[in-house]
Amino acid sequence: MILWIDGAFIPAGAARIDPRDRGFLLGDGVFETFAVERGGVLALGAHLARFRRSAQAIGLRLPVSDDALRRALAATIETNGLGVERAAVRITLTRGTGPPELLPPDPPSPRLLIAATPAGPPPSVMRAVIAHGVRRNEHSPMARIKSLSHLDAVLARMEAAERGAEEALMRNAAGNLASASAANLFLIADGACITPAVSEGALPGVTRALVLDLALRHGLGVREESIPVAALESAEEAFLTSSLLGLCPLIGVDGRRIGAGDVGPLTRRFRRALGNAHEHVEALLAPSRGGPG
Amino acid sequence: MILWIDGAFIPAGAARIDPRDRGFLLGDGVFETFAVERGGVLALGAHLARFRRSAQAIGLRLPVSDDALRRALAATIETNGLGVERAAVRITLTRGTGPPELLPPDPPSPRLLIAATPAGPPPSVMRAVIAHGVRRNEHSPMARIKSLSHLDAVLARMEAAERGAEEALMRNAAGNLASASAANLFLIADGACITPAVSEGALPGVTRALVLDLALRHGLGVREESIPVAALESAEEAFLTSSLLGLCPLIGVDGRRIGAGDVGPLTRRFRRALGNAHEHVEALLAPSRGGPG
Repeated sequence: MILWIDGAFIPAGAARIDPRDRGFLLGDGVFETFAVERGGVLALGAHLARFRRSAQAIGLRLPVSDDALRRALAATIETNGLGVERAAVRITLTRGTGPPELLPPDPPSPRLLIAATPAGPPPSVMRAVIAHGVRRNEHSPMARIKSLSHLDAVLARMEAAERGAEEALMRNAAGNLASASAANLFLIADGACITPAVSEGALPGVTRALVLDLALRHGLGVREESIPVAALESAEEAFLTSSLLGLCPLIGVDGRRIGAGDVGPLTRRFRRALGNAHEHVEALLAPSRGGPG
Repeated sequence: MILWIDGAFIPAGAARIDPRDRGFLLGDGVFETFAVERGGVLALGAHLARFRRSAQAIGLRLPVSDDALRRALAATIETNGLGVERAAVRITLTRGTGPPELLPPDPPSPRLLIAATPAGPPPSVMRAVIAHGVRRNEHSPMARIKSLSHLDAVLARMEAAERGAEEALMRNAAGNLASASAANLFLIADGACITPAVSEGALPGVTRALVLDLALRHGLGVREESIPVAALESAEEAFLTSSLLGLCPLIGVDGRRIGAGDVGPLTRRFRRALGNAHEHVEALLAPSRGGPG
């Protein structure tokens, strides 16, 4: 793996993060992840906009333009020979080094990294548990961005693995469902598409927004609201969304089936519609080099 | 600054954290900080015990014994020439490198770092604001440990600086006072010593425990409970505690005085008692080399 770090390409095994970097010491930074398929990214512009908003939310300015970032992303994918594969890309921005205290230096010296790794196909269905150990904090601006302070999600995912599931649903402080550890949650109930509101601690996910838009265009009712855990029992279908998962049917929670326990008709319809949302795919690589043509 | 990293001494400017380290990517690790004065540490054993508990809370095992850790701490202080100064020590444990996903490798390859830096005297008094932007999550086990996912505290401290204060008091999800960004909070009211309960999102601080013990021994009432923000108005005195601060009078919040707006009599008494708690000081360095003798 060859990383892009502040404009230079460095093999990961030789790349160096300073042990005084605040990203390392305090989780003081933000990141963004998305899938690249045959050189194209679904809603790339929305990802870059959220990355910029994440940085702003913690008082950082992204040190590069969107155009420069797109060029760096494309170069990183090509340098790693991933142009014709499915790849997972992660951009990381930290506040850089500083003296050993909470208050950052002013101005900071942020660091920007890009990593691209081969990614297999997403799972065809998932089962989840409801995490006992951790909850999302809907009162924190961290719930609205992808920050490096991500240990709650790590612990939720570890709990899921210990309990034999692929994902963990996380409740918020109020006890309602907020999201999965690395995905947004959708339920289908009474023919409507329901997802936890951002104010409930849901990440305003890029794929989440696309799916809400698709649901409206398919004439379905769409509700962003508080979802108690008990709503899982009456849900007819459920699915998870993220840039890396796309739309993945959630067929069981805590050992109980959701609906009929398989991929429901509306989930299937949404998954197909999302797969066909070509108008939202932006070419990151020139088609002649990495595209399908 | 010369760091101790997994048993080796490396100048900070040459030390390398792998950019795939989960501490860096996901805030996946824990840390512990304390002050060393003339070779001695207040309640060192309690700090090392909490560090071990923090590691356990996130499913990590500290790869060294307490004795080995004490020797490494002493060597780091001496190597940095800090044996006769006041120094701040930080121990950091990360889950190490792994593939780019939430679920850690099993078993992980944890990394252990020790840093020691010169520390000036703590401030004689502090003023705080109540953070608007972030809250502590009393529902997360992270509130009970010092984890690398520390961005909420960073943002609270940044808000304090923007609003002209040295510290930020953080509320919990329920809206009650939980702690400061890097210290525990105590109020004196009706002659009793009151501090937010751990279940309210307060860190079970080592200095907090010492002060609660001192209060009992001085015959004061001690209450760990829910503290609404309004309690600040009727508090006669207030102070903050941490290993680096010791006991620091909190004389104002949000521009309003606490009590008479200066260092109250019980705060003064506790501060003196804590300064004289020699029985809790453990020698980290041999007295002939770094101690006062």
